[in-house]
Amino acid sequence: MNSPLISMSRRLRKTPFTSRVMRYGVKAFTVYNRMLLPTEFDSLQEDYWHLCCDVQVWDVGAERQVSIKGPDADRLVQWMTPRNISKVALDQCAYLPLADEHGKLVNDPVGIRLAEDHWWLSVADSDVILWAKGLARGAGLRVAVTEPDVWPLAVQGPKAEDLVARVFGEEIRQIRFFRYRRMAYRTSQFIVARSGWSKQGGFEIYVNDVNAGQQLYDELFAMGEDLNVRPGSPNLIERMESGLLSFGNDMDSRHSVLEAGLGSFVSLDDDIPSLSHAALRAERERPAQRRLLGLMIDAEDGPMPVSEQPFTAQSVDEEHPYGSLQEALFLSEQTGHSLGSQVYSPRFRKQLATVMIEEPLLSEVEHHGQCEVVLEDGQRVTARVCTLPFDFTWMESSMVV
Amino acid sequence: MNSPLISMSRRLRKTPFTSRVMRYGVKAFTVYNRMLLPTEFDSLQEDYWHLCCDVQVWDVGAERQVSIKGPDADRLVQWMTPRNISKVALDQCAYLPLADEHGKLVNDPVGIRLAEDHWWLSVADSDVILWAKGLARGAGLRVAVTEPDVWPLAVQGPKAEDLVARVFGEEIRQIRFFRYRRMAYRTSQFIVARSGWSKQGGFEIYVNDVNAGQQLYDELFAMGEDLNVRPGSPNLIERMESGLLSFGNDMDSRHSVLEAGLGSFVSLDDDIPSLSHAALRAERERPAQRRLLGLMIDAEDGPMPVSEQPFTAQSVDEEHPYGSLQEALFLSEQTGHSLGSQVYSPRFRKQLATVMIEEPLLSEVEHHGQCEVVLEDGQRVTARVCTLPFDFTWMESSMVV
Repeated sequence: MNSPLISMSRRLRKTPFTSRVMRYGVKAFTVYNRMLLPTEFDSLQEDYWHLCCDVQVWDVGAERQVSIKGPDADRLVQWMTPRNISKVALDQCAYLPLADEHGKLVNDPVGIRLAEDHWWLSVADSDVILWAKGLARGAGLRVAVTEPDVWPLAVQGPKAEDLVARVFGEEIRQIRFFRYRRMAYRTSQFIVARSGWSKQGGFEIYVNDVNAGQQLYDELFAMGEDLNVRPGSPNLIERMESGLLSFGNDMDSRHSVLEAGLGSFVSLDDDIPSLSHAALRAERERPAQRRLLGLMIDAEDGPMPVSEQPFTAQSVDEEHPYGSLQEALFLSEQTGHSLGSQVYSPRFRKQLATVMIEEPLLSEVEHHGQCEVVLEDGQRVTARVCTLPFDFTWMESSMVV
Repeated sequence: MNSPLISMSRRLRKTPFTSRVMRYGVKAFTVYNRMLLPTEFDSLQEDYWHLCCDVQVWDVGAERQVSIKGPDADRLVQWMTPRNISKVALDQCAYLPLADEHGKLVNDPVGIRLAEDHWWLSVADSDVILWAKGLARGAGLRVAVTEPDVWPLAVQGPKAEDLVARVFGEEIRQIRFFRYRRMAYRTSQFIVARSGWSKQGGFEIYVNDVNAGQQLYDELFAMGEDLNVRPGSPNLIERMESGLLSFGNDMDSRHSVLEAGLGSFVSLDDDIPSLSHAALRAERERPAQRRLLGLMIDAEDGPMPVSEQPFTAQSVDEEHPYGSLQEALFLSEQTGHSLGSQVYSPRFRKQLATVMIEEPLLSEVEHHGQCEVVLEDGQRVTARVCTLPFDFTWMESSMVV
């Protein structure tokens, strides 16, 4: 059986770089904010090793910006997030979980403070623009909420700084983590931030001009030839190993900020007018009913087939309509524990997965630090249960370098 | 060059029917409301002829429902749409364009009045739930806005009524167009409406139970064998010929309700508290600046390659970052006129396209009724420009039956 293709249409928007990633032989796309986001070039594992060794240019135009500008911009952003934004400086980015009045997640953007009265929210996959416009319109706030023509381009990997310095100049080396500068490029000016959806180091360049952005894309490849630059994309293996969560995969709008383990990004002790504050404060006082945890399973005989196999009917679990391809592995004795993300780590020779575990199983696995899972071949194995991000120090002896 | 695959993940939600459409050999999916929506089984043209002759079962679970319930439900829905909802009866569905305070489209759902204080909006591809929640929360309305576990299943085609009657009983023949009844199925009860995203007749069944829905799916195939029942999906050829618009393809949030040609679905002369009323009334008094129109082009030598070719880098137009695969055809002398949908009609032997035409070209083409377009091979041809839906009566002589 052939794997299904993605059916193209204008509704699934291209970026200024889509034709280039097609020429570079992209193998698969996902759809993110109704925009094409590449997921694989050579193979998940080859892309992974290359990202960890060299430098990649990523078309992450699907990270759409929601621009909130006006006298009430701070008020609206603070209403939307339980994290105190008053300390975010003018050259700073901040990870801002957004939550509704029940404390449930709406999105988890990186907020960029562009001016005293102007934010960009670089959003994960949901229409934050409609949420922000609705709140603003309903409450009569003085803000303009728009989606600017901006398509981020990420340069990631240990050689990213060298490559970006060749194009933008040595000044970019002074940009600290989650800080940005406005950098000239030809006749344009781009926001360049030290950030990105990997832990291999690098920058995100907020391209706001199609032609200049395409020139930049080509120049990054021309200038990076000796650095072994290649096209890439957020990589599931690297993301899981690095403990970066994906809204919609690991947690979604059914889960609270605290259940998703984002407690360190909220400011519940500060007196701030956030929509979710009351609910989250109350939730903090109660015993947790569910919690996002990690599973680590010893994988025998090298990579297990789950993360490599094509999408076939046989791998679809009929009993889990919300589930995905990768849900071939599930908790055996309990229902309702769908896996979030799952991948084989070739470096640590482990299957890694995230799972939202509910009571009463939660207390049990937190006590034992392990649980039994059933693999797709019916085999029952013991999985180590841990908090996120995964802690690999205990298993360094099994590491592949 | 291979066509890219769709990269599966939990974020791209499955429906209770996904494993079944995979077994039936679905060739391609699109992503709609972050859910998998099949687009092709045999081929676009074979699916088309079959839909027009027999009966198909469609997994349209991606038509998510936004439930609005509470004492202020009517108030919120009326705020969101410029169409007067006061006359929508308790067993009725209504096409409800949603618009913001500038009259710009937010979505174009079918609204289903379930009770005096309860609506479902069966939405196109955008997070109406966040818009509705934001407005309600911002203005303090007394409504609960939720996404229920409902996955519509459509039965479409000239033999659809016979098939649905075999499963649900003869009573369904009495359901009028855009009306619904609550029908028992095993131990469940489903909303069954005479509606659907084709003009070949049929029903949409709002499945609210996974197991019963899967039994229903299988029973429709078992009972319909002699009717030549097959899996299908909304079909681009049939949709274009029938003049059914697609939000995100033909028009989007940059366009007003009136520019999209939806003037007959708004009630600007009624005194209703709609958010977009003032803007749309003002727009009605001004000369139109842009308008969604149709293009018909004589296609020589049978199907032109545009709608059949796989997605290749060569077909991607670098200068139109918002464009799509099908944008190989464009207006020659003007920029900014991206095509919406485009398809070859084998019945009428014409290329059909929608295009949002702006002034000053708009006056010109409305005067001449035609314009020049450039095909992907560089050929310049004359296209007939018309209002939508396409009027095929003038070309019946060229019709293939």
